[in-house]
Amino acid sequence: MTDREDFERAGRRAKDAAAELAPLTRAVKDAALHAVADALEAATAEIVKANAEDVTRARAAGTAEAMIDRLSLTPERIAAIAEAVRSVAALPDPVGETVRGSVLPNGLDLRQVRVPLGVVGIIYEGRPNVTVDAAALCLKSGNAALLRGSSSAHTSNSVLVDVMRRALAGTPVPADAVQLVPGTSRESVKHLMRARGLVDVLIPRGGASLINSVVEESTVPVIETGVGNCSVYVDAAADVAMAVEILLNAKTQRPSVCNAAETLLVHADVADAFLPAALAALAEKGVTVHGDERVRAYGDAVVPATEDDWDTEYLSLDIAARVVDSLDDAVAHIRRHGSGHTEAIVTASQPAARRFTARVDAAAVMVNASTRFTDGEEFGFGAEIGISTQKLHARGPMGLPELTSTKYVVTGDGQVR
Amino acid sequence: MTDREDFERAGRRAKDAAAELAPLTRAVKDAALHAVADALEAATAEIVKANAEDVTRARAAGTAEAMIDRLSLTPERIAAIAEAVRSVAALPDPVGETVRGSVLPNGLDLRQVRVPLGVVGIIYEGRPNVTVDAAALCLKSGNAALLRGSSSAHTSNSVLVDVMRRALAGTPVPADAVQLVPGTSRESVKHLMRARGLVDVLIPRGGASLINSVVEESTVPVIETGVGNCSVYVDAAADVAMAVEILLNAKTQRPSVCNAAETLLVHADVADAFLPAALAALAEKGVTVHGDERVRAYGDAVVPATEDDWDTEYLSLDIAARVVDSLDDAVAHIRRHGSGHTEAIVTASQPAARRFTARVDAAAVMVNASTRFTDGEEFGFGAEIGISTQKLHARGPMGLPELTSTKYVVTGDGQVR
Repeated sequence: MTDREDFERAGRRAKDAAAELAPLTRAVKDAALHAVADALEAATAEIVKANAEDVTRARAAGTAEAMIDRLSLTPERIAAIAEAVRSVAALPDPVGETVRGSVLPNGLDLRQVRVPLGVVGIIYEGRPNVTVDAAALCLKSGNAALLRGSSSAHTSNSVLVDVMRRALAGTPVPADAVQLVPGTSRESVKHLMRARGLVDVLIPRGGASLINSVVEESTVPVIETGVGNCSVYVDAAADVAMAVEILLNAKTQRPSVCNAAETLLVHADVADAFLPAALAALAEKGVTVHGDERVRAYGDAVVPATEDDWDTEYLSLDIAARVVDSLDDAVAHIRRHGSGHTEAIVTASQPAARRFTARVDAAAVMVNASTRFTDGEEFGFGAEIGISTQKLHARGPMGLPELTSTKYVVTGDGQVR
Repeated sequence: MTDREDFERAGRRAKDAAAELAPLTRAVKDAALHAVADALEAATAEIVKANAEDVTRARAAGTAEAMIDRLSLTPERIAAIAEAVRSVAALPDPVGETVRGSVLPNGLDLRQVRVPLGVVGIIYEGRPNVTVDAAALCLKSGNAALLRGSSSAHTSNSVLVDVMRRALAGTPVPADAVQLVPGTSRESVKHLMRARGLVDVLIPRGGASLINSVVEESTVPVIETGVGNCSVYVDAAADVAMAVEILLNAKTQRPSVCNAAETLLVHADVADAFLPAALAALAEKGVTVHGDERVRAYGDAVVPATEDDWDTEYLSLDIAARVVDSLDDAVAHIRRHGSGHTEAIVTASQPAARRFTARVDAAAVMVNASTRFTDGEEFGFGAEIGISTQKLHARGPMGLPELTSTKYVVTGDGQVR
């Protein structure tokens, strides 16, 4: 059997499973999630053993320690993964929620209700915990999951999916609601991207190059996630101490994530008061500042910024910095270089805050708060499947409701036009 | 200058216009819409003259009269188009609406507010009124419109856009918020489909082949509209007279539109009572029934259905018909052949209605009502830009809110993580 036939069989099984899963009640889905969580914990030894094979292979291939760390599963991490599944069970079920409803003039009863999307394809990189997180979120929202993780984690992912499917086999949730895409070749990703009609949405989670290639090649609708070239704009009317604290937090609290700050924009009027303190604080945390000429005037350690720096998502202890002459220049910089993730302003001026929030086009705009708050947990949505940086369907942290569509149910007693 | 450079200039102007348009108030946008409506009426003679050129060319090319009728603009039709623009002005502005809001435990004020999508590309067929309707809906929802109509209506569309742009030039709304895609070649459509980063969403309005080619080739997110292979399922517990009336209305009241019925599914237990009356009523209206063997037993005029008939959107006085043994068989037929637009059940049984609405996956599911009600006006949304048959972003009739995205505005007083 070819890869393509293998894939189509898996896709059709996922589609059938989605149809079976859609009308199941919350109680049934939650019980299945608890069965999955218990099964994962019970299979700890088996999972750790499979994971050790992936880790050994990765070490032999000279993989960096940070990547090895992301790949590794320990009994403690497996317990945390199981606990995350139980947290998903505790979240409200979005399916069936009435989004709007009315009675039309002709007496028709119109209700728009949330329904599952159907089959959700997820393409992701090294972390095997995503395999379980994504499956749990899909299952709770009534969707079948077709998972395509990194080939470096394939042994771990195979065992994780196997354990979940065995757990589901004892419940009304069809085991085929959770599947790995067959094969580890690049072709197998292509099948997923071209599976229009079998797969309802694709969510790539990873770096810019993965996401671009999915957007370019996919005929299945895609939700882009994750690329965050976020900035902190320190307005003329900023409280300087607050601005330093927000900047440090946004840049250094966890530099490797998408909602960390990558650019600092400083209004010229506050540069004298703010930049010396800010540069000293950044230096103390080991941050390299890539500054324009005006920023470099405030510190010898500032390295010259190139045009590329404004577009770079460092994900490291680096930040690009520029002095701007006005709030509108900051907005224009963001329009040109931002990735539409999170942009922050620090200001005590109400008109400045109002103008910035109205004119900056991003998933999240922060006023006097760190960019690091753009997150499903922080926003109170519970777990998230990713942070959408596009404008269609979902924008910002995607929780369970963002994994649903709607349908109109129209009830009458014989109405015709 | 190449076509591609021409297109990119237009796209960049649209993107700049969208940024200017986004923060404008409802009052400003409504005044601009009234200026557009007045200008269209004042330019009636100019528009009719341009349209006559398109019509002459279409006649010379041997175009069918139905198409000529869709293409033609008369003073009365221009007045109706202007009036439709005024109706759009009268609709509520979706921009700025708070979709959800809360105060987080750390005191951050979280609001999710509606914002324009940005630049909306619309690809459509013969009717020049779509040029104005689409521009008005985009403008009201704060979006710039990049319009690509049929080359057969290019002279009419050029004048319509010209008149609208001249009207906008006297308002705070930038004229570049309404543009035709430069050129009439097939290449110019390709530029629009590949304009990721310049165009935020593409809405193709037309037949299945247009929509498929856009989905296949576009890197810009697409909202699919319009293909409707809708069915009426007459349940065992149906009121027979009501079922006949709904079927006739769904099939014959306006056969050329996407929410007209194309398939009839009849439960075996009601076939004796329903089919003779239904076939007689359909014959009287001139409908050709393409039936399976069991349907053919009820009428000599029924022509044999082929496998293709189940998947055909006739848009004519034809209907495919099949007898099924159960509600679940009807649901299975719809799952296999439906286009996800509108499916109707006629039944007096509450459990049957509940099972059908829960298991049929479509933009709209009708209980004891005609499929013809799936429509923005009928649903009370005012004008619609199309009927989405996909599951992402918008499903069913798309009004003004469906032409928006959202952004999170998060306001604090120095919060960090």
